[in-house]
Amino acid sequence: MLPKSQLKLITSLAQKKYRKEHGLFIAEGFKTVTELMESRLKLQHLYISNPVHASLNKNHTLISEKDLKKISQLKTPAEILGIYHIPGSRPIETNALVIALDDVRDPGNLGTIIRLCDWFGVRDLVCSHNTVDCYNPKVVQATMGSLSRVNISYVNLSEFLQKNEDTSIIGTFMDGRNIYKEMLPTKGVLIMGNEANGIRDEIANLVDNKITIPRFGEKNVTESLNVATATAIILSEFRRASIEM
Amino acid sequence: MLPKSQLKLITSLAQKKYRKEHGLFIAEGFKTVTELMESRLKLQHLYISNPVHASLNKNHTLISEKDLKKISQLKTPAEILGIYHIPGSRPIETNALVIALDDVRDPGNLGTIIRLCDWFGVRDLVCSHNTVDCYNPKVVQATMGSLSRVNISYVNLSEFLQKNEDTSIIGTFMDGRNIYKEMLPTKGVLIMGNEANGIRDEIANLVDNKITIPRFGEKNVTESLNVATATAIILSEFRRASIEM
Repeated sequence: MLPKSQLKLITSLAQKKYRKEHGLFIAEGFKTVTELMESRLKLQHLYISNPVHASLNKNHTLISEKDLKKISQLKTPAEILGIYHIPGSRPIETNALVIALDDVRDPGNLGTIIRLCDWFGVRDLVCSHNTVDCYNPKVVQATMGSLSRVNISYVNLSEFLQKNEDTSIIGTFMDGRNIYKEMLPTKGVLIMGNEANGIRDEIANLVDNKITIPRFGEKNVTESLNVATATAIILSEFRRASIEM
Repeated sequence: MLPKSQLKLITSLAQKKYRKEHGLFIAEGFKTVTELMESRLKLQHLYISNPVHASLNKNHTLISEKDLKKISQLKTPAEILGIYHIPGSRPIETNALVIALDDVRDPGNLGTIIRLCDWFGVRDLVCSHNTVDCYNPKVVQATMGSLSRVNISYVNLSEFLQKNEDTSIIGTFMDGRNIYKEMLPTKGVLIMGNEANGIRDEIANLVDNKITIPRFGEKNVTESLNVATATAIILSEFRRASIEM
């Protein structure tokens, strides 16, 4: 049986303040855990409910399904739960394309954006302090292992942009210029805004180039694209433009 | 108080077989309900827990928050729940770009793809019978009202493609041709596959042009893009190509 103290520690990691306090986070499921194990991230301990996974790492404890269910954040626990050390951020390299998020709140959206950065070879993802924590269990789950391949930094976004004012700063707005007709740079900072409110005025004032994805369907509709799908389209456009140069 | 018979009917609509039996589905929240109300969809009845929404439609019942919670499919019920009639599908117009889904199972993915069709002016979305039902409450929620603007048909996908063999049939595969270097047609059927298994062999055999979104990050990674983000990128490429022609 899992000692109470461990149970308490692990379940506390669902909350950001305890993740910060302990410097630990949870990842679940075979694919995510094994991908993180092969990365620069350090495993603290592995909990498995099926002995078949014992060979994954010496540093493991076999526990009952019931105990795994207690520590799992998933509706359907997946036999494997790893506790990892939160890595320190490496310095941000602004001499490339950097993605910056201004208060993106939905864990699924952040997880998808981290996967997209990984796919499109974006090394640095910069998040405003009010962006959802990338070690939130739902974010970790949505990244499918990409988490270890992207350097994620939480910063005061306004200060970060001011410090990098010689860089091209691009933001997405409903009334921006048609992305298909813009010359996109191969480096710079691309800002994506909050799900409901977009980019804050304070940040918008620092943007050099406002872009948008034009709507092809009925025009008199207030709907906008979800921030994760918009990021997918814009990143694709940046990378396509870089091939053609 | 809500009569037991109504409570039973409404909660049964969480299941596909009862939606089919009654020809009804649920939509929740102010934005989704009002967008559907302005569409061709017919409201059967509206349930509200706050009298401020009474002016939306005469055909409403004011119920307690407790009762709304009972009939809601959301964790945090949103004061408004509408019951709508499931519309009949209109004939599929194959003289344009049509999206076809081969067993897409995740409600969030289908919801996102419906929004993308709406955004990019794709009139017809064709789904294999094993694709998640578009009137599933989670799909309806994820579409944010786009549901009424896209014509969704559930078909035997193999038969549908065989009947349209004079149309250009394009499929997405891990080993397809680089989408950024392909000439994309302005009309045809674009097939997106299942989250875990991609496009079935039976369907793959009917594809004329296999395409892929190239990976720019580390190459020796098994990861693929999520089907909804891949659809976003490919639809964007199709529409961009149509502008430039």
